[in-house]
Amino acid sequence: MNGKKMWQGRFTETSNRLIEAFNNSINFDKRLVRYDIKGSIAHVKMLCKIGVLTTAEKEQIITELEAIKDAPFEFQQNDEDVHMAVERILTDRIGPLGGKLHTGRSRNDQVALDMHLYTKHVVLGLINDLQLLCESMLTKADEHIDVIMPGYTHLQRAQPVRFSHHLLCYINMFKRDITKLQHLYEEVDISPLGCGAIAGSTFALDRQYVAKELGLARVYSNSMDGVSNRDFVAHTMFICSMIMMHLSRLSEELVLWCSHEFNFIELSDAVSTGSSMMPQKKNPDVPELVRGKTGRVYGNLLGFLTTLKGLPLTYNKDMQEDKEGFFDTIDTTKTCINVTTVIIENIFVTSKMQEAIDSDFSVATDVADYLAQKGLPFREAHEVTGQIVKYCLEHHILIKDINFEIFRRFSSLFERDIYNFIKPLNVVDRRQTEGGTARCQVEKQLKDMVIYFNELTEKKSKMSH
Amino acid sequence: MNGKKMWQGRFTETSNRLIEAFNNSINFDKRLVRYDIKGSIAHVKMLCKIGVLTTAEKEQIITELEAIKDAPFEFQQNDEDVHMAVERILTDRIGPLGGKLHTGRSRNDQVALDMHLYTKHVVLGLINDLQLLCESMLTKADEHIDVIMPGYTHLQRAQPVRFSHHLLCYINMFKRDITKLQHLYEEVDISPLGCGAIAGSTFALDRQYVAKELGLARVYSNSMDGVSNRDFVAHTMFICSMIMMHLSRLSEELVLWCSHEFNFIELSDAVSTGSSMMPQKKNPDVPELVRGKTGRVYGNLLGFLTTLKGLPLTYNKDMQEDKEGFFDTIDTTKTCINVTTVIIENIFVTSKMQEAIDSDFSVATDVADYLAQKGLPFREAHEVTGQIVKYCLEHHILIKDINFEIFRRFSSLFERDIYNFIKPLNVVDRRQTEGGTARCQVEKQLKDMVIYFNELTEKKSKMSH
Amino acid sequence: MNGKKMWQGRFTETSNRLIEAFNNSINFDKRLVRYDIKGSIAHVKMLCKIGVLTTAEKEQIITELEAIKDAPFEFQQNDEDVHMAVERILTDRIGPLGGKLHTGRSRNDQVALDMHLYTKHVVLGLINDLQLLCESMLTKADEHIDVIMPGYTHLQRAQPVRFSHHLLCYINMFKRDITKLQHLYEEVDISPLGCGAIAGSTFALDRQYVAKELGLARVYSNSMDGVSNRDFVAHTMFICSMIMMHLSRLSEELVLWCSHEFNFIELSDAVSTGSSMMPQKKNPDVPELVRGKTGRVYGNLLGFLTTLKGLPLTYNKDMQEDKEGFFDTIDTTKTCINVTTVIIENIFVTSKMQEAIDSDFSVATDVADYLAQKGLPFREAHEVTGQIVKYCLEHHILIKDINFEIFRRFSSLFERDIYNFIKPLNVVDRRQTEGGTARCQVEKQLKDMVIYFNELTEKKSKMSH
Amino acid sequence: MNGKKMWQGRFTETSNRLIEAFNNSINFDKRLVRYDIKGSIAHVKMLCKIGVLTTAEKEQIITELEAIKDAPFEFQQNDEDVHMAVERILTDRIGPLGGKLHTGRSRNDQVALDMHLYTKHVVLGLINDLQLLCESMLTKADEHIDVIMPGYTHLQRAQPVRFSHHLLCYINMFKRDITKLQHLYEEVDISPLGCGAIAGSTFALDRQYVAKELGLARVYSNSMDGVSNRDFVAHTMFICSMIMMHLSRLSEELVLWCSHEFNFIELSDAVSTGSSMMPQKKNPDVPELVRGKTGRVYGNLLGFLTTLKGLPLTYNKDMQEDKEGFFDTIDTTKTCINVTTVIIENIFVTSKMQEAIDSDFSVATDVADYLAQKGLPFREAHEVTGQIVKYCLEHHILIKDINFEIFRRFSSLFERDIYNFIKPLNVVDRRQTEGGTARCQVEKQLKDMVIYFNELTEKKSKMSH
Repeated sequence: MNGKKMWQGRFTETSNRLIEAFNNSINFDKRLVRYDIKGSIAHVKMLCKIGVLTTAEKEQIITELEAIKDAPFEFQQNDEDVHMAVERILTDRIGPLGGKLHTGRSRNDQVALDMHLYTKHVVLGLINDLQLLCESMLTKADEHIDVIMPGYTHLQRAQPVRFSHHLLCYINMFKRDITKLQHLYEEVDISPLGCGAIAGSTFALDRQYVAKELGLARVYSNSMDGVSNRDFVAHTMFICSMIMMHLSRLSEELVLWCSHEFNFIELSDAVSTGSSMMPQKKNPDVPELVRGKTGRVYGNLLGFLTTLKGLPLTYNKDMQEDKEGFFDTIDTTKTCINVTTVIIENIFVTSKMQEAIDSDFSVATDVADYLAQKGLPFREAHEVTGQIVKYCLEHHILIKDINFEIFRRFSSLFERDIYNFIKPLNVVDRRQTEGGTARCQVEKQLKDMVIYFNELTEKKSKMSH
Repeated sequence: MNGKKMWQGRFTETSNRLIEAFNNSINFDKRLVRYDIKGSIAHVKMLCKIGVLTTAEKEQIITELEAIKDAPFEFQQNDEDVHMAVERILTDRIGPLGGKLHTGRSRNDQVALDMHLYTKHVVLGLINDLQLLCESMLTKADEHIDVIMPGYTHLQRAQPVRFSHHLLCYINMFKRDITKLQHLYEEVDISPLGCGAIAGSTFALDRQYVAKELGLARVYSNSMDGVSNRDFVAHTMFICSMIMMHLSRLSEELVLWCSHEFNFIELSDAVSTGSSMMPQKKNPDVPELVRGKTGRVYGNLLGFLTTLKGLPLTYNKDMQEDKEGFFDTIDTTKTCINVTTVIIENIFVTSKMQEAIDSDFSVATDVADYLAQKGLPFREAHEVTGQIVKYCLEHHILIKDINFEIFRRFSSLFERDIYNFIKPLNVVDRRQTEGGTARCQVEKQLKDMVIYFNELTEKKSKMSH
Repeated sequence: MNGKKMWQGRFTETSNRLIEAFNNSINFDKRLVRYDIKGSIAHVKMLCKIGVLTTAEKEQIITELEAIKDAPFEFQQNDEDVHMAVERILTDRIGPLGGKLHTGRSRNDQVALDMHLYTKHVVLGLINDLQLLCESMLTKADEHIDVIMPGYTHLQRAQPVRFSHHLLCYINMFKRDITKLQHLYEEVDISPLGCGAIAGSTFALDRQYVAKELGLARVYSNSMDGVSNRDFVAHTMFICSMIMMHLSRLSEELVLWCSHEFNFIELSDAVSTGSSMMPQKKNPDVPELVRGKTGRVYGNLLGFLTTLKGLPLTYNKDMQEDKEGFFDTIDTTKTCINVTTVIIENIFVTSKMQEAIDSDFSVATDVADYLAQKGLPFREAHEVTGQIVKYCLEHHILIKDINFEIFRRFSSLFERDIYNFIKPLNVVDRRQTEGGTARCQVEKQLKDMVIYFNELTEKKSKMSH
Repeated sequence: MNGKKMWQGRFTETSNRLIEAFNNSINFDKRLVRYDIKGSIAHVKMLCKIGVLTTAEKEQIITELEAIKDAPFEFQQNDEDVHMAVERILTDRIGPLGGKLHTGRSRNDQVALDMHLYTKHVVLGLINDLQLLCESMLTKADEHIDVIMPGYTHLQRAQPVRFSHHLLCYINMFKRDITKLQHLYEEVDISPLGCGAIAGSTFALDRQYVAKELGLARVYSNSMDGVSNRDFVAHTMFICSMIMMHLSRLSEELVLWCSHEFNFIELSDAVSTGSSMMPQKKNPDVPELVRGKTGRVYGNLLGFLTTLKGLPLTYNKDMQEDKEGFFDTIDTTKTCINVTTVIIENIFVTSKMQEAIDSDFSVATDVADYLAQKGLPFREAHEVTGQIVKYCLEHHILIKDINFEIFRRFSSLFERDIYNFIKPLNVVDRRQTEGGTARCQVEKQLKDMVIYFNELTEKKSKMSH
């Protein structure tokens, strides 16, 4: 068994470094430095308030922490994590006083706090990004209020709808995502500091004071929960999965619409790419890649849920895995929202989309409705219309091109007004039920959305701090 | 290529049946019948209100629908889905009038409504189940308020905590799940009826009236969204995943505590099983199985998210996959909560748990704290305590058994009060920061939880209808 | 805390039943009965061979086991699992002798054996199903050897390819799946019987004899591994995920091709469905549903991997979760393969597919190739062709319709043979590299595939038993 | 709608850069540079062989490519991908000749080749890593051949087993992983070069020659398959998931064994960490983190499967997502195997493990066996033993401490040899069935494993090139 001996030979040289590199988190948790220092400053203020630090000590520490935050500095490869790195630098500068920062605090509640502050920041950013995307879609919808396109079920043309109505469907999805983010915001608006390693602290810490300093609404009511809770990480990853799912549906449609066969939209050159081999190609890379990245965001969610499964209380090293996938999910989702906003700004609706409805059988439902309105039971009206469609297919014509006599052959209920009745604009404008695709309803939707986003802007200004 | 010919021979006989069986959903969507009929009754009332049906017609249809709901009846294998099954039975009984029920309604908005009503019902049920679980844990916590056990990080004994404090940590997790379910309740409290197949209806449907009849707070503002939205299905599956994750952590601990090595609890015979081969065994099957089923609930979530990825608007047959995994998730989660409640009722805390803390080094932090309080910088206090632990390990004794002279040898700051200082009860009761494990803090937590659940009971009574 | 009291009231009545129902697996593991009895018969023969049972006892037990297998019988709700159910029925019939069947066997190695035998059977079935699907595709490919269609990258038309070449791409995917299944077959061709509960048996069991009786190639060499290994379950679920992934890609294309916009194929009425509301619709439900079910099969895989994560040795009740998701995956995959085979049999290629290539710029690469062959560096040739495409788009013509003088204006290297050069059939037939889309290469692929499947049929006959 | 205007303002400045950064893959695909250049060199040799390049041109290009590979050089942020980066650098050095490298090749088949070569390399590395891990476990097993420990089911002590037998169970798992890797090796031992963008090439490329140059066994037989196949990526990720699952089970046990309660092993200080707050702690961070990282590797698998779902042929930009998660999976798995090897080297078995079996009821099965051997039907023997265990529990004694008269009271079949019969060493050594935990069987397992790994070393030397 030579393998073993080989290892042993290597052991003193590389094993410890291997183990250390494996355990260290500095390479990715350095992203939290800003929040870590913010939390430390609040902690220091509180320690002063309860008499553990003098005012002079407090001010010295805060001054240095601010300096560390603002000045670019190098973390070292052998810093275990962001907390140790900051403490090391601080102690280098001000000596043993730096260690006092640790009074009444454990890395367990410290890292929990960093994650809360970071997530709060991120949630607000995602709401912002989604709002910008929705506003770009609202602009498109507004500009194209009278463009009519085929609405699909089963990727079969079903009934004509307004392009704006179609876009508003996506805006509604993203609005639901925003609502979820607002709930998540409340969930992370809570401070774990003072929970200690697990059981609380023997110092008379003022947890409410710290929370208030940090702009957090409340404190964890159970110390073990405060240090071991990562629900909000999974929750963020789920909401991002929903956002990506919605983006993937939109992206799929953009890819379809760019195809030679649909040809409903064109992307400006700035946001599409060519082929090194095929000169005629103009590829919708961005929506394809957004669609593809959905898998990755799902995967991160599943991965983290799996990591948490079956972990006994309280902190376990497994939970260090709450960061890389989480950060990747946030970066990916954020970027995908933003590039999609750029894409929306850069799509041009072709005449083909607008004419599409003239060349198919999407108005068939309305032919049936016409007959039903004249008194034919709906099932029969449906049957008759089916025969009309079959006739058209056999004769290679469209419904609107059917001779009036032929119409009458199918049913004597047809009058000459049928031709007007099935004009696409009339078809859509008859759908005046609340939420329908008639112009009046779509205008109402647009107006309500503008009000909603104005109110959201208001709310956000109160959420940030 | 004989394969092909074989198939062709079989084709007329079995292929159509194969395809039909593949497409049909009656075997699982029959679960929705109660909600389907409820929705139909509301629709019928509205059709009467807007003049599409006479009062007599309305009453005849409703009478029959009620009869179908109440009387047990057999769906047929070749019914496509629950909607067609109900319509078939209705038409069998009252003839063509049965078909009028379909006026201004499509299966797309109909099935969407069923899913909303069903989910609303399910959400309330889950809140109830979680409340019962929490209340059984509160009872246990209350009964064992002074039981002290080791608190763990990294599955290493860290600091003593109250058993009740430990249980309250789980109650806090489930409380977060309840909050999520309340948000979900609001999300599904909305009616898609009147959205038609995709574009709204040409009939002057009164959507608000229908919503009110069904106890739904509002209507979808975009018809395409109303028929294609399944966000709430994924959302339910996510919350169930969180619940299962929490249950899996609790279950892992129950399994550990039942082991020969921990021996912290015993399960009553009624809820554990023996072995066919090993007479001494008493297996914690229930928590093991709960832990195992976590994977399945995660899998259903990921499966459904994957199904939704990249689907163009609006309804696609893929979305029929919103049911089986969803129902399985709900059944599994519900059962797992309920069996865990039974388990909690049936655990007996052993003396071993209560004595555990006396035989380890969990009080080491407090030795360091003692020295720190006497003025030693924390890092030094930590260092000294490390040496004390090392000394104990070498001499096979515990900290409390160290001779006073020996204590002094490590530091002259030690006084005789150190022995009292490190008694477990004193150790836990010094942790009086908010959320700490001191008795006063745990009692406060218990009291607050009782208030919370009383208020929840109140709220639920307003949510149901 | 009334909740608790409510529970207690119910406890004696329903809790035990709740727990029992939760633990029992009879509702789903009854599927294994055939394999369970097969294993028992082999075990009994061996017990006789080593002298534990007399020949008379052996024969009596076998006779009854065969009877149980062949005669329909009812499992009872309170049978814990399939093993206990069979034992109960056997003991009802032949008394205490029935218990002797258990000698030297534990439920741990027994259920492991059942799962191996079942999986072996299932793997062969899946190979068969895939072969039939491939053969139906080979037939289609053979029939349409000269149909040329656009080949796509980024869902943009790229270069013309033969429809048969396109189908052969899928056959190659499924061929890889078959190879994986063959490797899996070897993996499950192994007997765990004789591993006992965990540590082996004290009886002088002849494990090789049992394996041979059951047609299994070898025995587990470590008893703990034999009872705790479920790798093959996850492996099967992975291969099924790959099959579904391949089917989902094919299904996506079928859905696209059925759309009004592509209109490349038609599905026969027998395998598509209409709409209750829209008379013109003909929905590709089957490929949509196959695509949708991909998520479910992925979910089952991930669910089971999650269940296995972090389980200590050896058997844990969590592992009972190896069945429902597994069975669902197998049923789903099997059905999806089979309905896809029916769909392939029932697609009709439209003239639109065949003419598609005449109306786009797929031949652009070949224009560049033409220039490159005449000596222009490829990058320049690409550049020139790009200008030609731009010219066409501006003048709404196709490349083949460009006036010869115009061609010359772009490059003096153009000769009159350019028109012939870019005819689709010439374009595809120039791609004669191995694996290319030229007729000679496609014919070679077809021929090689026929040979492959003939050899597979041969191999399968040796695999079955 | 100010949002929109904000965006527009930013557009010319940042949007293009945003889109470009989103599309570029240079940041992660640069890892492939070595394989990309290797593939280019083979391609160049072939182009010379078929007369497209002169020998002088060939040699000039190869010299430069070798130089680029060996000399450290900087990719630029705006290089789209590794292929363009290499081409840019090459062209910078040798002018237009650099462009000729592209003849008869597309980025589609080029990147496919890179991924095949990289994966082949990675697979061999993983086999190596697993072998080293297994060999370190074999060494431990060999050293501790007579250490007896409790074997567990349901985390309840079941029957005594050898510690070496327990370790061999894991070796068998990893052996299955190695077999899977060997099959994967065959799967990726195939060249896509010459498949072009999608349809093959019009140049008379010699694909077999290129494959041979690259040490690849064969070429893709269908060009569309060659460029769109990423099955092997998913396959690698699955095998890594299995490896991680196995490692997570081992890690869970290591964590349990390190706990105060089990105390079966100690980790050397070099591979464990302390606590900043609790001086007595020694945390098993490494196995915890390995266990935690399992989720991430599962997540990457699910993510990629999701990405591939429903993609139409052939290349889509979504497939660029085949890299980051894939690389992360490989790095994570590789590191986790290697740190586990270090851990295995550094565990010390405590006396507590060796004495554990003396203090429980693991020998109960053997008491039942004893009675069964004396003629009592097994079910009755099981019953009697159950009563004996109950008696012991009530009297707080172990089975071996029961008075002989008491034994007789339970059954007159007991003789004085019962005491010897239930000694742990005798208990394990009676399990002599193949694969049992008796010394003779464990020695056989060890011997067979050594042979297996010797043969594997042989095979690997033939696999590498």
